[in-house]
Amino acid sequence: MSSLSCVTVIGTGLIGTSVALALRDRGVEVRLADHSPDAVRQAAELGAGVPLTDQDQPADLVVIAVPPLYVAEVLYNAQRRELGACYTDVASVKAPVIAAAERRGCDFAAFVPSHPMAGSERKGPATARADLFAGHAWALCPTSATSAAAVEVVTSAARLTGAVTYELDAEAHDRAAAVISHLPHLVSSVLAGRLAGVDPATLRLAGRGLLDVTRVAAGDVRLWTDILTHNAKPVAELVDSLADDLKVVSEELRQVAANGGASADGLAAVLSKGNAGRERLLTSRPAS
Amino acid sequence: MSSLSCVTVIGTGLIGTSVALALRDRGVEVRLADHSPDAVRQAAELGAGVPLTDQDQPADLVVIAVPPLYVAEVLYNAQRRELGACYTDVASVKAPVIAAAERRGCDFAAFVPSHPMAGSERKGPATARADLFAGHAWALCPTSATSAAAVEVVTSAARLTGAVTYELDAEAHDRAAAVISHLPHLVSSVLAGRLAGVDPATLRLAGRGLLDVTRVAAGDVRLWTDILTHNAKPVAELVDSLADDLKVVSEELRQVAANGGASADGLAAVLSKGNAGRERLLTSRPAS
Repeated sequence: MSSLSCVTVIGTGLIGTSVALALRDRGVEVRLADHSPDAVRQAAELGAGVPLTDQDQPADLVVIAVPPLYVAEVLYNAQRRELGACYTDVASVKAPVIAAAERRGCDFAAFVPSHPMAGSERKGPATARADLFAGHAWALCPTSATSAAAVEVVTSAARLTGAVTYELDAEAHDRAAAVISHLPHLVSSVLAGRLAGVDPATLRLAGRGLLDVTRVAAGDVRLWTDILTHNAKPVAELVDSLADDLKVVSEELRQVAANGGASADGLAAVLSKGNAGRERLLTSRPAS
Repeated sequence: MSSLSCVTVIGTGLIGTSVALALRDRGVEVRLADHSPDAVRQAAELGAGVPLTDQDQPADLVVIAVPPLYVAEVLYNAQRRELGACYTDVASVKAPVIAAAERRGCDFAAFVPSHPMAGSERKGPATARADLFAGHAWALCPTSATSAAAVEVVTSAARLTGAVTYELDAEAHDRAAAVISHLPHLVSSVLAGRLAGVDPATLRLAGRGLLDVTRVAAGDVRLWTDILTHNAKPVAELVDSLADDLKVVSEELRQVAANGGASADGLAAVLSKGNAGRERLLTSRPAS
């Protein structure tokens, strides 16, 4: 493992501040930057590190924790200012971010595109947690130009937060993210969106199930519009396909209603497949 | 509040055993019955009460915690054996259960159909928790024949578990349950079902979001087939409508993909509506 003594985090929202807190807990020196001085101050007050200054020496690693749309620009400027020996980002989409960084002329030898697969529906430094990444996956998507040394440094940092690292290429990451993150987010949003018109006397009856299914629907609209925009085509196909699955289910339900409850085998098959998929998810994850 | 000194629970699965544990914690004497002697023994060992015997005096209340399909038969037999002064059930659908109990010739003066709006994807007495209902709604659906005294007893019992009681008619309950419970369950199942064919290398990347959205998909297939069968028509309409909403979203995504990310306003509107619905849910619930 590479030794890591100093990290600069640019973007002190939920993810950036959580990375900073986790690294501070492991004795790493952390410097903080954000376009909002308030966000830096808040993160620093939480013990996430100290504000970055122009006099600081280059860090071992710069973590760019800004929305996908801004990664290329922030990375370019950080490299121009020589803020660190290597760089990573944490955006939920990788191929479009890499393409934008290429267009911007970033140095790829020192850049390891990455994505910690943990988050929250909340935002801002005050919602950060040092254990946000513990037991969760952290995807690393080095390009053919990325140096082995940079991969080693980012791997070290990710593992220090308690995450389990996996290397895969950016396209594979984006296809996976569509299935495991972007589709569920939209499904949760659309389901929650229906509740906007439901009377409170009905909603007050809701139990844990609805709370869990709709939790991520509270996510930041601008961030998620940005993420989904950058992975729109594969997500569109998945959403379409899920809608088709639901049409099959509504047909099953109509048949059950029409025949007075006899032959609900189709319905049971849908639920059994749900059991199987959930089980496969639990057994596949590192934390399970 | 009516005084409650002795309750009999028939059906010592997750819900029945949790009711028993909650009432035991409040000093109520609890007797347990189930078609499975093992389930009764397990519940008793957990401190949920003692097995019901033929020599027992009638209880103040009999809680029938069996799947919807069996409520009428179990209620009829319990009333014939004079097991209690009044009766309630906990099934997730109310109008069909009431209709079945009417057909079976049950005594409605002593019967308060009810539904505690809390549960878990797990089953069996070992998964029970005394605090399962704390802060959650418990719907009471008395019929025109139900006595005020019976309503008072069931209200007392529900409140002793920490639940917040609401009275509404059975049809209103079933419409509400379709929106807040049955639709989300199916959405979670269908989404989880898609994961059954996804490779573990993809699933191991999944974070908390997917775990939460698919949690209820692990629910018992027979129980949920039973529940959905009894509310099939309203749920079919909601599933259809949600599928239509998703088709609109996939169209938005295709447009965003086609125009290179410009004018993602439609997508942002979907996410904003999700924010609003989630907020409305949180502010409507008693526990929030």
